Amino acid sequence: MSMLLTNIVELVTNDPAHGDGLGIVPDAAVVVQAGRIAWTGPAVSAPSTDAAVDLGGRCVIPGFVDSHSHTVFAGDRAAEFAARMTGEPYTGGGIATTVAATRAASEDTLRARGQALVREMLAQGTTTVEIKSGYGQDVVTESRMLRIARELTPETTYLGAHTVPAEYADDRAGYLRLVTGPMLAACAPHARWVDVFCEPAAPTAFDEDESRAVLRAGLRAGLLARVHGNQLSAGPGVRLAVEVGAASVDHCTHLTDADVDALAGSWGSGPGPTAGGGGPGPGTVATLLPAVEFSTRSPYPDARRLLAAGVPVALATDCNPGSGYSSSMSFVVALAVREMRMSPAEALWSATAGGAAALRRDDVGHLRVGARADLTVLDAPSHTYLAYRPGVPLVSEVWKDGNRA
Amino acid sequence: MSMLLTNIVELVTNDPAHGDGLGIVPDAAVVVQAGRIAWTGPAVSAPSTDAAVDLGGRCVIPGFVDSHSHTVFAGDRAAEFAARMTGEPYTGGGIATTVAATRAASEDTLRARGQALVREMLAQGTTTVEIKSGYGQDVVTESRMLRIARELTPETTYLGAHTVPAEYADDRAGYLRLVTGPMLAACAPHARWVDVFCEPAAPTAFDEDESRAVLRAGLRAGLLARVHGNQLSAGPGVRLAVEVGAASVDHCTHLTDADVDALAGSWGSGPGPTAGGGGPGPGTVATLLPAVEFSTRSPYPDARRLLAAGVPVALATDCNPGSGYSSSMSFVVALAVREMRMSPAEALWSATAGGAAALRRDDVGHLRVGARADLTVLDAPSHTYLAYRPGVPLVSEVWKDGNRA
Repeated sequence: MSMLLTNIVELVTNDPAHGDGLGIVPDAAVVVQAGRIAWTGPAVSAPSTDAAVDLGGRCVIPGFVDSHSHTVFAGDRAAEFAARMTGEPYTGGGIATTVAATRAASEDTLRARGQALVREMLAQGTTTVEIKSGYGQDVVTESRMLRIARELTPETTYLGAHTVPAEYADDRAGYLRLVTGPMLAACAPHARWVDVFCEPAAPTAFDEDESRAVLRAGLRAGLLARVHGNQLSAGPGVRLAVEVGAASVDHCTHLTDADVDALAGSWGSGPGPTAGGGGPGPGTVATLLPAVEFSTRSPYPDARRLLAAGVPVALATDCNPGSGYSSSMSFVVALAVREMRMSPAEALWSATAGGAAALRRDDVGHLRVGARADLTVLDAPSHTYLAYRPGVPLVSEVWKDGNRA
Repeated sequence: MSMLLTNIVELVTNDPAHGDGLGIVPDAAVVVQAGRIAWTGPAVSAPSTDAAVDLGGRCVIPGFVDSHSHTVFAGDRAAEFAARMTGEPYTGGGIATTVAATRAASEDTLRARGQALVREMLAQGTTTVEIKSGYGQDVVTESRMLRIARELTPETTYLGAHTVPAEYADDRAGYLRLVTGPMLAACAPHARWVDVFCEPAAPTAFDEDESRAVLRAGLRAGLLARVHGNQLSAGPGVRLAVEVGAASVDHCTHLTDADVDALAGSWGSGPGPTAGGGGPGPGTVATLLPAVEFSTRSPYPDARRLLAAGVPVALATDCNPGSGYSSSMSFVVALAVREMRMSPAEALWSATAGGAAALRRDDVGHLRVGARADLTVLDAPSHTYLAYRPGVPLVSEVWKDGNRA
């Protein structure tokens, strides 16, 4: 059955066939068939269909692709957040608090929390989400997190190398053997990606050699690579990500010129960030997570430097209980515009097509013919409103695989 | 009929009887009768009632009091916003664009937009809102705006002196005569407040003498005073507000020590901003509007300086199409914590009891016995989540005058 979605005042397609940048079609319609996009264009030219839905003069964008989240966990760290914001001393355990709560939680508890967060994301227009492990840091809990995550999304990431847990503080090599050995073996069946928090400046994170070992072991196990890099210092994360062919390096707050060159070089002459609709290439995307800088009161990454160098940029939430617990891609877009001087169009591209490139997906993040019919409907006349009306829940409905969610 | 609202994991009352600051009651219940709060306390001590509603272990706060908005207007300025954010030249008319669109709009169009925005605010937990005129700048349109605003809220503000319209650019005295004469006469029946944009640094705003004339005329007509002051420069707005006994001076971005002293002095030894539940006093509240600084990429006001001096602080959205189009008090709270270093508790107090003080209302902004039963239910275990989860629509339901909205 074919379905016409019509009365769309502004349709964002990320389809170069409809123009540069966002491929915007005014006064548009979309035809959906078998869960895929069958046609997009001006409403006056729409083909006949079996049924039609009037979207009430709203704006339609591709569903957000949130390519970096940690939405399977237990407990919260609201008190730690409040202490950080007010500058008061806090004696909690940071990430260790979440690791302890996640290990102690039942599978049902973890599943319920993960389901609730993914539902919350979907209601806010996110139709594709990546979810990492990393709060288990033992074989049983890491693999449990990934089994649950896999129920929620195909984009699951093994992050056993998130931090070194307290019980291995004096035996980092032992933890590396676990992460690259039995834990990897237990997790790989449930994961698409391997990830590592590469940050020599953080004593419980991983240095260059350790990170390389983790990534190479994951690659050997058939996983694809992504990296947490350059969040706290201009460390080796970006260069390592490019070296191993990672799809994305995430955070990118502290970059050297060589880092920027490496990222740009990974794409050769491939799609730049304003090449709207360019499918995923073979290079490494720079994924920026400004909600973390918001919630940690840290300096924001320099998005313009990356864009000027032609590096594809993705935006994601990093939704997690410690450094930033927002699940809102609209909020991330608003921050990207306000704090990183991305244009509203660049930010939306990065939150959709950019995220898809960071996940090496060509079926989401755009509304070209053949794409999944994942659509977010905004109660607004244009995509600019995502930044123009910060904090306002503008998403009025969401379609996932051709069905109203 | 008495109604028990129960299974409240954290109840914020702003009632000193329940403790300093926010007057928090854990594991609480509320009794509502005839649209008012009849009892609050631990659920185990709740009196028997005719009916009960289980709030599912959520957090309940007083409905937000948004004491500064401009939500009756026509048109939008999304293109101006985008140009400002990207640093591109923009040749639009600024506020004159909104004045032209508002004058040209039908009463039905203005009413529909205002209703939609107030509904949007209510859905986000705002149960009391102030609405200003100021986009008419002629007798017919100013009074039309206020008639519509009065349908939406009792807190209506005559702001004929928002800017000097183009047709009076060479006759400021003539516009002042209009604002203090026939326009005031037409508007006063629909308004509770008189306001002026006192800002010598802005050529189309009003200087000290002009502002005093506007405020004194409004006071003579039976209105109460509030002031837009010290937004762009350390001008005379704050001192004038205190001089005329204004309930609030709004913006307060640029303050001298004398300004801070004047605000503190206006309260004598009255309630400070952490006196949670202190009823409105006779002084002048400092109302901060950080969503404007967000959307104009401007420096934020120094909330801590005001709090340290004992000045009661209110937070409001300033929802308007030009300088900040957010209607979200949750977003304002998150900005206040991140950007102005207010604690989550201070920010929530300012967004509820502070707003009530800025409107000289003692029936809203708190949940003491006798208050209006205006309650916002958060899908969160504590009020800290408003800042901990920025951008996430946490409001799960809203009660207004004892009824689910």
